[in-house]
Amino acid sequence: MAETTLDKIVSLCKRRGFIFQSSEIYGGLSGAWDYGPLGVELKNNIRDFWWKEMTQMHDNIVGLDASILMHPKVWEASGHVSNFTDPMVDCRQCRSRFRADQIDLTKPCPNCGTKDSFTEPRNFNLMFSTHMGPVQDDSSVVYLRPETAQGIYADFKNVVQSSRVKIPFGIAQVGKSFRNEITTKNFIFRSCEFEQMEMQYFCKPGEDEKWFDFWKEQRMAFYEKMGINSENLRWHQHGEDELAFYAKDAYDIQFRFPMGWQELEGVHNRTDYDLTQHQQFSGKDLTYLDQETKERYIPYVVETSAGLTRNVLMVLSDAYEEEKLEGNEVRTVMHLHPKIAPVTVAVLPLVKKDGIAEFAQKLEKELREDFATFYDQSGAIGRRYRRMDEIGTPYCITVDYQTLEDKTVTVRYRDSMEQERIQISLLSSHLNKTTKLYKRG
Amino acid sequence: MAETTLDKIVSLCKRRGFIFQSSEIYGGLSGAWDYGPLGVELKNNIRDFWWKEMTQMHDNIVGLDASILMHPKVWEASGHVSNFTDPMVDCRQCRSRFRADQIDLTKPCPNCGTKDSFTEPRNFNLMFSTHMGPVQDDSSVVYLRPETAQGIYADFKNVVQSSRVKIPFGIAQVGKSFRNEITTKNFIFRSCEFEQMEMQYFCKPGEDEKWFDFWKEQRMAFYEKMGINSENLRWHQHGEDELAFYAKDAYDIQFRFPMGWQELEGVHNRTDYDLTQHQQFSGKDLTYLDQETKERYIPYVVETSAGLTRNVLMVLSDAYEEEKLEGNEVRTVMHLHPKIAPVTVAVLPLVKKDGIAEFAQKLEKELREDFATFYDQSGAIGRRYRRMDEIGTPYCITVDYQTLEDKTVTVRYRDSMEQERIQISLLSSHLNKTTKLYKRG
Repeated sequence: MAETTLDKIVSLCKRRGFIFQSSEIYGGLSGAWDYGPLGVELKNNIRDFWWKEMTQMHDNIVGLDASILMHPKVWEASGHVSNFTDPMVDCRQCRSRFRADQIDLTKPCPNCGTKDSFTEPRNFNLMFSTHMGPVQDDSSVVYLRPETAQGIYADFKNVVQSSRVKIPFGIAQVGKSFRNEITTKNFIFRSCEFEQMEMQYFCKPGEDEKWFDFWKEQRMAFYEKMGINSENLRWHQHGEDELAFYAKDAYDIQFRFPMGWQELEGVHNRTDYDLTQHQQFSGKDLTYLDQETKERYIPYVVETSAGLTRNVLMVLSDAYEEEKLEGNEVRTVMHLHPKIAPVTVAVLPLVKKDGIAEFAQKLEKELREDFATFYDQSGAIGRRYRRMDEIGTPYCITVDYQTLEDKTVTVRYRDSMEQERIQISLLSSHLNKTTKLYKRG
Repeated sequence: MAETTLDKIVSLCKRRGFIFQSSEIYGGLSGAWDYGPLGVELKNNIRDFWWKEMTQMHDNIVGLDASILMHPKVWEASGHVSNFTDPMVDCRQCRSRFRADQIDLTKPCPNCGTKDSFTEPRNFNLMFSTHMGPVQDDSSVVYLRPETAQGIYADFKNVVQSSRVKIPFGIAQVGKSFRNEITTKNFIFRSCEFEQMEMQYFCKPGEDEKWFDFWKEQRMAFYEKMGINSENLRWHQHGEDELAFYAKDAYDIQFRFPMGWQELEGVHNRTDYDLTQHQQFSGKDLTYLDQETKERYIPYVVETSAGLTRNVLMVLSDAYEEEKLEGNEVRTVMHLHPKIAPVTVAVLPLVKKDGIAEFAQKLEKELREDFATFYDQSGAIGRRYRRMDEIGTPYCITVDYQTLEDKTVTVRYRDSMEQERIQISLLSSHLNKTTKLYKRG
């Protein structure tokens, strides 16, 4: 099997409308990406799959959508204002700025070649800041959130009071975060604007280790449910040098990206650190009262923190295959799980004439209510199948002369390329059942 | 019927977990709001309803998710850098700043009372700006987008090249936008951070009026499909004084909010203005080639631009009722369409004992896969019904002694408060059918 390189993914994404560079007609904006017609559907499907698994399927997890702009004190309490920094040096000669840990400070400036020209390293905060209100001064500074988690902590009390949740319970959130990363790279893997899917699980101190283990298991199972190859997934435990000072334990789920093993999601035991900080900085009581035992405490938090945009890259990398067929032909196929594929059902008339195109169009229209459909009548049928393989469409429905006679269609399966005839009246339930039972072929 | 005031909506939203003030424990951040457990589900459901209606149900509309941070030239081309401003004056005495069109400049300063203290009005740009990269100077300024539409224009060429769309076609997008509004008010109606649902429909010049009429009709029908009272909706045509200089025609859909008739959505004929601007500023060819007629032109655009967060306020205002029952009892009920209600099905055991709670829990678990469910066993059954009425849950399923005998449950309908017994095996299909046929009672 041919190697899946990042370049191949990037090229397919642009060509087929998954992902474009932001503002490309203006030369692009580094670190920002646009999700095109297929990319936005894929991203939404992953988002919805996560949301359903986390909220709808758990009776003790509720959702939240906190604002991106928050009170600046939130980021003082969380430690981001003082600690969320990279060390930077300037070249005194040419004024270029570099990350101190990414260049050799004893060598000449990589830009102008001057030796001994660097300033002392200074800490550069990764939060984007802006001003709210008509006056631009220190008092009006607000930040674009660098993570969604703090919105959950800030709303902890409101959620407890309005939702009658009882510990243990979780709050889940999907949304954009922003980091002024100087070295964005690897396509959408590390960008300045990205999306997170985070869940904070509030539990009783002492029960945190049990729930930590529970969520480790749940989160890994999630990716297998989404059809990801388990040999491309592994655990990485944070060592002493990686562990945040307040964290009790932390594991990352790593995925084998085209550029190597990299973090996909973190499962962290954050203890009572965040709520304690917010209690102190806000002066508000953030303890929880157990109605049955009458105990009052600040809950421990087990966090599951995944990148949605990073999930998109994982799914594409994992699904991509250049498959060798008979006669040395190569087909590019994306083995996307039918639940997250941008197009679920393609409807293809074998020929345009004799009312076959009209029949197929009518069928496509009927299927729209229940499936993400695509109608394509141009080109040879084999070519049309290949176009659908390349974007990961699991089912191609072909309408032919026999259809007009007996109301059956051909269902062609992406992974196996096998075909079978199905009665149109049974089509929807057949596709739904096949999706439920899907195993990557 | 009691009047629906904004205060009642705000209060219900906080109490039941629809909407909280952002960063409330820190005194709040003006102009930003958090969507709580029920609010986020309601907002997501409206978003998904719009997305499905616009993309999945139209074979010539594709989706897009452009980044919030874009190249600053985008906003020069669009005119936002020079024209998206409010006139502001400062008081020379106390340094307070005011919108020039909202105070009487001939009177004393509203803050310190000094007369003749105002500076000349200066234009204040409503875009939030920040700096990207390590250096904070003019060359690194980027803006938070004040509208999603420009992302669609910037990607027009990429979409045409990658998606084989043919004119007429549309590009739809949902996402956050940001405006540094000095006077945020009316709850979530006007805020600094908000969500839009915009669709740009690209058509041939000369056919724009036809499509303008088509989209006017479609968009009004959308709100009726969502169950909004048609007497609370009306059209407002932009007069000469309101119409943007490049616009050929513009209508707003207005909704009767608790504070009066206000804009909910705009349907605008933007001509070829935006693409022409971007072609000029980017130097890239943004014309469209009609493959059949070989004509080449810059398409006209019919835009449908709705506020998602404003839709949330509309839906809540429209659904809210304080209904007088027999014996002068008042019930607060939200007549949300079952398709968008945060909870679709509540499962309530009549009593906790004799295995009834366990049976109900099992049933709730079975329904989770297909419905947004909620389990509640605490308090009298009448009180539990009322709690569900208040958050707009259309169906309450009650498990009682008879259920254990004959596997039937009571389905209680929110609007009519009528009940009927249904076989559990038929429950899902019954609820789906009822939702499809739903008319506000």
